[in-house]
Amino acid sequence: MNAEKVPDIIIGRLPIYLRALQRMSEKGMRTTSSQELAKHVGISSAQIRKDVSQFGEFGKQGTGYSIPFLMDKLREILKVNRMWDVVVVGAGELGHALSRYQGFSDRGFCIVMLFDNDPSRIGKKVGEFVVEDSANMVERIRSANIKIAMLTVPASAAQSTTDKLVQAGIKAILNYAPISLNVPDTVHVQYIDPATHLQRMTYYL
Amino acid sequence: MNAEKVPDIIIGRLPIYLRALQRMSEKGMRTTSSQELAKHVGISSAQIRKDVSQFGEFGKQGTGYSIPFLMDKLREILKVNRMWDVVVVGAGELGHALSRYQGFSDRGFCIVMLFDNDPSRIGKKVGEFVVEDSANMVERIRSANIKIAMLTVPASAAQSTTDKLVQAGIKAILNYAPISLNVPDTVHVQYIDPATHLQRMTYYL
Repeated sequence: MNAEKVPDIIIGRLPIYLRALQRMSEKGMRTTSSQELAKHVGISSAQIRKDVSQFGEFGKQGTGYSIPFLMDKLREILKVNRMWDVVVVGAGELGHALSRYQGFSDRGFCIVMLFDNDPSRIGKKVGEFVVEDSANMVERIRSANIKIAMLTVPASAAQSTTDKLVQAGIKAILNYAPISLNVPDTVHVQYIDPATHLQRMTYYL
Repeated sequence: MNAEKVPDIIIGRLPIYLRALQRMSEKGMRTTSSQELAKHVGISSAQIRKDVSQFGEFGKQGTGYSIPFLMDKLREILKVNRMWDVVVVGAGELGHALSRYQGFSDRGFCIVMLFDNDPSRIGKKVGEFVVEDSANMVERIRSANIKIAMLTVPASAAQSTTDKLVQAGIKAILNYAPISLNVPDTVHVQYIDPATHLQRMTYYL
């Protein structure tokens, strides 16, 4: 096992495998094969076997993979065999939707704070949260030792907000603002921008 | 120009370049260099030059790229030098947020219909739309000749809804449901699942 050097493209596929295994498990399945998993994720069985084997021998020839065991292993590798606290910055419509989304808790994440700088939003209740003033964001995040943020502010505010998140000790940002962010090498950013995803498909139409 | 064979990974970067150029243009900039663009997108200047050169010679040594010209070319390559009609299926909180999102129109997309199967949602107004009954979805999409859908239904309904979208002639699906979809080779799918993106980062924390 030499996880340090596993290419990021492989790491990117592991959450997809884990998600499919979780669904199989919810349906009561206990074992699977790389062929069966391949059908669920749209990735070849050879690729799945190769990806998984980077981290050890988790399957048995003939009997395939134990779903609970492989889920445990993937959770351990991805470090989601624990709960991560997450802050949402930007209490607009998307921030609201994310704060109320039920699909995080069984995948390792728990939203714990929601910030905005708009006085008309601060103090309002969103699901279980009260929108907090982003003026207190750096201190609040730092004292709670939170490492993950979701950014749903307008593009014009995204970089300045990011600088504050980095200052607060955030190490992973899921950015919904349609702009590339400048961060230190020690901070990871993933992007969600529906127009970018759509444009990637129109090329083929 | 041999666009047919350009790897998908390159196609995936073009919308990011286009997005950065649009922002530069909004700030009144008229020219840029691969070095400057690199700073905005977090991709090396050599990679940018290589990617762009797949489609022709768009820059001039010494003077760099004309921003309006390169934007036009990228829009043409990505086929967003026109407007695409898009349907949203699933009028939950995320479907609402997408239907009201202002960031599609200047990037080639116009949401024109919103469907749900929940009687309590059908007929309700969301922004400029009235939520339509998904029982009429196949016919409505087909007669309007719409090719692009955004899917924001629960995971349990995602595959059956996708089958209907394919039947209706949809060729590109942006899937927000946390499940991999089975579609014919002629249909393109992109995935947006925040938990998957977060798990890809926790690996590194």
